[in-house]
Amino acid sequence: MSKIAYINSKYIKFNNAKIHIEDRGLQFADSVYEVVAIINKNLVDLKFHFKRLRYSLGKLNIEYKFNDKKLTNIFIKLIDNNLVKNGIIYLQITRGVQSREHAYKRNLKPTLIIYTQNKIFNLPNKNFKGVKAITHEDLRWSRRDIKTTNLLPNVLAENLANKRNAYTAILIKNNKITEGSHSNIWIVKNNKILTHPSNTDILKGVTRTTLKLIIKEFGLKLSENSFTKKQLYDADEVFLTSSGSFVTPVIKIDSKLINNGKIGNITLKLAKLYSKSFINE
Amino acid sequence: MSKIAYINSKYIKFNNAKIHIEDRGLQFADSVYEVVAIINKNLVDLKFHFKRLRYSLGKLNIEYKFNDKKLTNIFIKLIDNNLVKNGIIYLQITRGVQSREHAYKRNLKPTLIIYTQNKIFNLPNKNFKGVKAITHEDLRWSRRDIKTTNLLPNVLAENLANKRNAYTAILIKNNKITEGSHSNIWIVKNNKILTHPSNTDILKGVTRTTLKLIIKEFGLKLSENSFTKKQLYDADEVFLTSSGSFVTPVIKIDSKLINNGKIGNITLKLAKLYSKSFINE
Repeated sequence: MSKIAYINSKYIKFNNAKIHIEDRGLQFADSVYEVVAIINKNLVDLKFHFKRLRYSLGKLNIEYKFNDKKLTNIFIKLIDNNLVKNGIIYLQITRGVQSREHAYKRNLKPTLIIYTQNKIFNLPNKNFKGVKAITHEDLRWSRRDIKTTNLLPNVLAENLANKRNAYTAILIKNNKITEGSHSNIWIVKNNKILTHPSNTDILKGVTRTTLKLIIKEFGLKLSENSFTKKQLYDADEVFLTSSGSFVTPVIKIDSKLINNGKIGNITLKLAKLYSKSFINE
Repeated sequence: MSKIAYINSKYIKFNNAKIHIEDRGLQFADSVYEVVAIINKNLVDLKFHFKRLRYSLGKLNIEYKFNDKKLTNIFIKLIDNNLVKNGIIYLQITRGVQSREHAYKRNLKPTLIIYTQNKIFNLPNKNFKGVKAITHEDLRWSRRDIKTTNLLPNVLAENLANKRNAYTAILIKNNKITEGSHSNIWIVKNNKILTHPSNTDILKGVTRTTLKLIIKEFGLKLSENSFTKKQLYDADEVFLTSSGSFVTPVIKIDSKLINNGKIGNITLKLAKLYSKSFINE
């Protein structure tokens, strides 16, 4: 069976899954998206993704109402048809199609796109890996709290990281670490965990939200405050979180080794606790 | 004959003009564009558009080579087929289609999209109109010099302006006027013309470039320096330039009338000189 995608209200062969050239997602990045991890055919942290999707749609006034159950059934049908065991659901909602002009018309019909990708995750088992990162100026627009496809600066930073054989880029604005080019960034210093507060400067990651609950449940110390590049370099441990990377240790940043290039104890503990939250589902 | 568009190397019915859901233009705003005015079937300032298109492609490392003559022939064929007398050419080049991840692969085949729209222009004849604008915080990313589709903040500002019965939004960053949500902004004070210098904070508009030549040719005084919101409000005249609006007077900003709500003499003179540059072509 060939791979299928879901566009608006139809299942369609993936290779034929297309949208019109006047879709505002293509012309203006006027769209929102979510990436949901699939582990052993289970959807990870799904309710938080739906919650954030509603937040993003609301902030852009994209009038798209959805039913969690119906959307979940589409996800499951795609996972089953496309024989995905481990992978992701990619979901994008654009404002719709309109004769091109910056301002949008009311009552447009949003475009819904859903499909799956296979993916191998970095899980805390015997193959668990730490990654390298570079630091990079944060060139993004001012509303990073909305999960939009206005992603070009993320692309450019990530691409530069890859060119330098690093996994990702850690972004810096006014000497404060905001987040990664597609993740949230955390440091550990003297057993205390630190991450940027959730405001318009960062995306409130779904994995970040779940991990905060785990940190609280297990009595670890967390402070939501921004930190500097020097604090990042001098950290005992650094890790990143995202729906595609879960909890991933960062063991080298620019030319600076973190924790002598080894995965730290607190990072490993959190990665295991987080993976338990969905592997035992 | 039905309207046609040009996608990659094919002419195709406009209604069927589609791109794949994994096009990076749709998923990451990883694309550049140009809008070229058509007046009496003539393409306005075309060579400057080609020059800027090459600049934008180069800055994003999108490896798309084009021949000015061949591209012009496609424009002319679309104009002829679609019976456009006055309108625009919309051209977009995306990095291409790739299995979704932030970093891009080398040797992707860029997606080329070209189509026409009819448009009525605001020309300095008996119907010449001044417009209203609002001011708005400039929320855009840091590389406004590249003409990309990373345009969501422009959309939101423009939409708010329209909601308030204004034509457009004038953007302010750190108390300096940068530009409009799809135009460059100029003020006149004591017969001296002032506009933001061309650096990474603004797009170097094609109409801006041509108008600078006209200003020089006719011995008017121009200073390329940034200016404040107070200077904007206190200006003798304000106008905007863009490939879709040419030279358009701004006669009200927020609740402040400019030049008592009338089109200023220097604005009118420049609008006439600019329109001569293409109407007599």
